[in-house]
Amino acid sequence: MARTPVAEHEGRVRALLAPLRTRGAETVPVSAALGRVLAASVASPIALPPFRNSQMDGFAVRSSDIVPGVSLPIAGEIAAAAGTPAPLVAGTAVRIMTGAPLPEGADAVVPVEDTVTSEGSTVTIASAWSHGSYVREVGSDLAAGAELLPGGVRLASRHLAALAAAGLTEVVVESRVRVAVISTGSELVAPGDLLGPGQISDSNGTALVAAARDVAAEIVFEGRVVDDRAAFEALLEAALAADAELVLTSGGISQGEYEVVREALEPRGALVDVLAMQPGGPQAIASFQGIPVICFPGNPVSSQLSFLLFVEPVLREIAGLPDRIRVTRVLDAPVTSVAGKRQFLRGLALPDGKVATLGGASSHLVAALAAADVLLDIPEDTTELPAGATVETWEL
Amino acid sequence: MARTPVAEHEGRVRALLAPLRTRGAETVPVSAALGRVLAASVASPIALPPFRNSQMDGFAVRSSDIVPGVSLPIAGEIAAAAGTPAPLVAGTAVRIMTGAPLPEGADAVVPVEDTVTSEGSTVTIASAWSHGSYVREVGSDLAAGAELLPGGVRLASRHLAALAAAGLTEVVVESRVRVAVISTGSELVAPGDLLGPGQISDSNGTALVAAARDVAAEIVFEGRVVDDRAAFEALLEAALAADAELVLTSGGISQGEYEVVREALEPRGALVDVLAMQPGGPQAIASFQGIPVICFPGNPVSSQLSFLLFVEPVLREIAGLPDRIRVTRVLDAPVTSVAGKRQFLRGLALPDGKVATLGGASSHLVAALAAADVLLDIPEDTTELPAGATVETWEL
Repeated sequence: MARTPVAEHEGRVRALLAPLRTRGAETVPVSAALGRVLAASVASPIALPPFRNSQMDGFAVRSSDIVPGVSLPIAGEIAAAAGTPAPLVAGTAVRIMTGAPLPEGADAVVPVEDTVTSEGSTVTIASAWSHGSYVREVGSDLAAGAELLPGGVRLASRHLAALAAAGLTEVVVESRVRVAVISTGSELVAPGDLLGPGQISDSNGTALVAAARDVAAEIVFEGRVVDDRAAFEALLEAALAADAELVLTSGGISQGEYEVVREALEPRGALVDVLAMQPGGPQAIASFQGIPVICFPGNPVSSQLSFLLFVEPVLREIAGLPDRIRVTRVLDAPVTSVAGKRQFLRGLALPDGKVATLGGASSHLVAALAAADVLLDIPEDTTELPAGATVETWEL
Repeated sequence: MARTPVAEHEGRVRALLAPLRTRGAETVPVSAALGRVLAASVASPIALPPFRNSQMDGFAVRSSDIVPGVSLPIAGEIAAAAGTPAPLVAGTAVRIMTGAPLPEGADAVVPVEDTVTSEGSTVTIASAWSHGSYVREVGSDLAAGAELLPGGVRLASRHLAALAAAGLTEVVVESRVRVAVISTGSELVAPGDLLGPGQISDSNGTALVAAARDVAAEIVFEGRVVDDRAAFEALLEAALAADAELVLTSGGISQGEYEVVREALEPRGALVDVLAMQPGGPQAIASFQGIPVICFPGNPVSSQLSFLLFVEPVLREIAGLPDRIRVTRVLDAPVTSVAGKRQFLRGLALPDGKVATLGGASSHLVAALAAADVLLDIPEDTTELPAGATVETWEL
């Protein structure tokens, strides 16, 4: 059987999820906008700074009054929050604090370090100071109406600070992708429930929910179902009722019997395939009432890696998050791989910059995956690599 | 005046915040544990996998019965969730699904691809299969009682999956650092409030709250206060009543008058200093009723950079987050800097790998900081750098 290359399935998932890129926007408070993606450019309603102010603690003066060594009477003091100060009388100086508004008539600030005051009433200025020295002009950071932030930016603290400085309290951001996660398999029980013979705790639900959240998706529905087609279909309906716009399933898509996801979705046009990869060969994509359904195999390692390969890159792009980092590393020991399958081995990045494999290739090794910090990406046509060979790795 | 090097103040803050490293732990549901740091090693209460099961869809057999071309009667079928299957009768094969429990007596699984079945009652096996083939032994991933996850790990989706697989629903994680943020300055109004003459929107509160959250701190108190010592002290009391274990303040620590943070904290032993850096020269650290208070200057760019330099590295370390990335880049154009001050200029990483400065050096340029994606770190003793010189940059 000719297996489909991983890249081809990546393209299918990307195409199916393309409509998710042009979704709605929502308005959120700036205080809740950290990490969200700005839906459109934001203009500043005010100039920044909004008034002409001092960059230093010192004296506001007319620069034309200043020659080195000049002494001027101190005509008063302007603190921050001084309201509108009285105009500067020519030939005088006014004590001024950083951030305080410059009086009409002043065009320079002399830093306190350049001055000596006598009896608090006269200031002697050591140097010459030119027009505009230590003055923050209105709009010198940004003009009123100019673009404060471009659309598409992922909001970090410095962006929220700029919004606050402009007096903005709400911001329009891209909606998060609303995801439903459904685990299938009669052998599954909820974590924490007592295991009967032949039963295992469902880890796929926990893994996919957390992995989707980690790339900024919103989980609107979580479900777990036995291998019963009607029950599975009822969960799909419930996911859609919860307004999911992407459904992720695990299990039920291989060539065995009791493959509930295939049974339900193949009659609706699902594409069920076996990829040239290990773990995670069986994969499917479908639409259910117009909503994309991405179907992963049920083995825990397979479903986790499938999400990482096929869905995570799309969600990262939508969320404005960078791609997962890939690093070329040197193998610590020889590695063998299966011909005709792109293999993703679990590994540890070593302090010496090399990489070692961890656990085996089998798709049930969920503890070994947890202990790994990289994936080794062994190409489809490679069957063995000696120690010292370079290998592409994905950071976990 | 001799200014204190940045590194010396870094050391002071780190020393003051050292007690935060040995804080309490709390128990949270696994579903809420993404990104938290495990307080101690977790052992698996069960073996993984908990029972011997099949790695493939195929036939469970006794390996000693198998020679290439052998035909065996099919004695039944074992699905996933089959409970305890009947023992395998020697000389027969049982159809088995991936993940289903192996029957007593079977020691190998023959993949369906290696078989031909006649009339559903006999299977012919093409190859020889040895003991243990495609069998997942009990504990082959992890023995019962063995370490599932080490303490100190920052919980990603694969770790939560391992906890779920082991049947665990709660986990003990390090408490998040409880932070209070207080903005001081009579010129400040809440973002969104109408600006009177000489007033500006407080962006420091928004910035510090978001920046602290971004490195996993919990914000337990936010306040804003005019330049009034009693009012500021009342906010400190309120922050402590909210159980803050770290207080961040902005404003009120320079050499001018109306320096409310200095006035309140110097009598309590605050260390108030001026650093050899720009922006952000004035800095202070204090303790208030045993709780560390880190005091930043009030200029918006200064306070944001001060957090990034002095507090963020400590919070990242506590949260198990990696350090902020620093990259050596090549200057696009000449840069001048002030002698005796380590300067942090805002910059843009260019597509050609070079870096350009953005906006000026002044500490009020909050929009320019928002537009920047790197900081250029110009050493204290450098006054000019030509185009093409290398410079250390911090990723924003």
